[in-house]
Amino acid sequence: MHNTRILLDRRPVGEPVPEDFRIVEEPLAPLADGELRIRGQWLSLDPYMRGRMNEGKSYVKPVELGAVMCGEVVGEVAESRHPEFAVGDLVAGDLGWQSMPTSNGTGLRKLLPGIPPAAQLSVCGMPGVTAWCGLMLIGAPKAGETVVVSAAAGAVGSVVGQIAKLKGCRVVGIAGGADKCRHVIEDLGFDACIDYKAGRLREDLKAATPNGVDIYFDNVGGEILDTVLARMNPFSRLPVCGLISQYNASEPYGLRNFRSVLVNRIKIQGFIVFDMKEHHRQAVTELAGWLAEGKLKYRESIAEGLRAAPAAFIGLLRGANLGKQLVRL
Amino acid sequence: MHNTRILLDRRPVGEPVPEDFRIVEEPLAPLADGELRIRGQWLSLDPYMRGRMNEGKSYVKPVELGAVMCGEVVGEVAESRHPEFAVGDLVAGDLGWQSMPTSNGTGLRKLLPGIPPAAQLSVCGMPGVTAWCGLMLIGAPKAGETVVVSAAAGAVGSVVGQIAKLKGCRVVGIAGGADKCRHVIEDLGFDACIDYKAGRLREDLKAATPNGVDIYFDNVGGEILDTVLARMNPFSRLPVCGLISQYNASEPYGLRNFRSVLVNRIKIQGFIVFDMKEHHRQAVTELAGWLAEGKLKYRESIAEGLRAAPAAFIGLLRGANLGKQLVRL
Repeated sequence: MHNTRILLDRRPVGEPVPEDFRIVEEPLAPLADGELRIRGQWLSLDPYMRGRMNEGKSYVKPVELGAVMCGEVVGEVAESRHPEFAVGDLVAGDLGWQSMPTSNGTGLRKLLPGIPPAAQLSVCGMPGVTAWCGLMLIGAPKAGETVVVSAAAGAVGSVVGQIAKLKGCRVVGIAGGADKCRHVIEDLGFDACIDYKAGRLREDLKAATPNGVDIYFDNVGGEILDTVLARMNPFSRLPVCGLISQYNASEPYGLRNFRSVLVNRIKIQGFIVFDMKEHHRQAVTELAGWLAEGKLKYRESIAEGLRAAPAAFIGLLRGANLGKQLVRL
Repeated sequence: MHNTRILLDRRPVGEPVPEDFRIVEEPLAPLADGELRIRGQWLSLDPYMRGRMNEGKSYVKPVELGAVMCGEVVGEVAESRHPEFAVGDLVAGDLGWQSMPTSNGTGLRKLLPGIPPAAQLSVCGMPGVTAWCGLMLIGAPKAGETVVVSAAAGAVGSVVGQIAKLKGCRVVGIAGGADKCRHVIEDLGFDACIDYKAGRLREDLKAATPNGVDIYFDNVGGEILDTVLARMNPFSRLPVCGLISQYNASEPYGLRNFRSVLVNRIKIQGFIVFDMKEHHRQAVTELAGWLAEGKLKYRESIAEGLRAAPAAFIGLLRGANLGKQLVRL
């Protein structure tokens, strides 16, 4: 048995390429006392990882060159010298891009019963909790309000819109391409979805939000953020969850409609799900409840095998995925 | 006796010019029942008035063409057929750019005793209350934090910085020109003041904020906002009070450092003092108390006579004033 690991070999300039990663195979070392080994089942791929590939100040430290890429894995305990984990336990944690990771248990959580393991990386995992925290704690939706969310077919956006519908809001998604928009409306139940690639974002947004926008949950930044800013209502809220349009950009987009912040007394707040730990239990409980009641749909895009992770990640940044991007290990 | 009035004659394109205003003299009409006449003493000139000169959606309706320019006046009741106001009462209200305005009492307030009338248009009036509300309610300063304020020598900025000092913060102003910066440091007691006209804003800001920026009270927008964004600390706050750099601009500035909002989980909030009415009494009480204790300094730039108002207002938008811009009627 070997452990396959994918390392950051080079810091990308703009869009990552396969050569920025290095795949290594390592024999399994014997476990030390207090360690356990996990047979990875699923690796989560998420846009935030692009930020970790850069040098320089961000909200967490960058991945070091030559270190394993960061990422959440779910898997089964294959071997254990740790008192709290037994062989056969299903666990999740930030174990990185590897097939048979070793852990000392720090940050490792046991999976919830009755929820598919992969869903504990998406709708009931970090992306779902991110959606819940940003929408409920910053957006604070009220029935009858209009909520817009970008990257609406993605792991976070799809949950944001469905929670907003459960709260009685009018929900408008923004996504790239007709297929994603159809999925967002027909499968996820949004009231409307705008294809930003169709080139009529301003006009389509205006038509889809006749009463303006009360909450814009931003996953993308850039020109889409700028366009939505001009549709915001007085006292509207704008949780900033991600800026995926900017992650590969060498020149940042210049935001021209900031005046709307003053005119409409908008509250804009950047957030990271890790800052809101005291709300995670409530978020997961509610998400799992809705999932069990059939009120929360989700879709997965699955890449086969750890070696497929770099290409799947590059595709994720281009918007090639529908729903949660996973790698089956 | 006549009433002199200054009307909006033309909507400015970019910077206002004297020809955008029209001065008219009108004989005094007899008062109707419930009306009173005020002998104006002081007219307040404020940057927000530039927004009211434009057509189109803003937080309040624009001034109509041919109507009197909006603005707060303090004066003495000269004649009254209103049960609540007697001849000799000192009052303030949005009476517009006129020397002997008539009022039905709506929105008119009696001046507080013991505070100079003109100060009730500045440090203990709308600008002071604006400073208090934005800093205390959105900024929420804690002792030891670093507070940056732009237009630091202006009516709002000068109060923001002094309150922040009273709360135990390190306070850095941004102002245009060496004279203003000297005033901000020597008279107002700020820890530092950066002359943005010196062309080294980024370097000077970095040197003046070795621990980053916890609160940026923005009065100007544009390039200064963009530069400060890059110095903001995690969980910092950014009340947006004004965007004076943009009021005359035909092309809005493109904000490039928005990424900092996500990376640092910044809270940005636009506000207008009129939205925070429930806090005004507390604000005025505290401001008047600090003023009486000599803890709050203020400066006035005074133009003589109502006919000088257009030129003084054009100067205000260029930053020609030091402290509160008033017109002595």
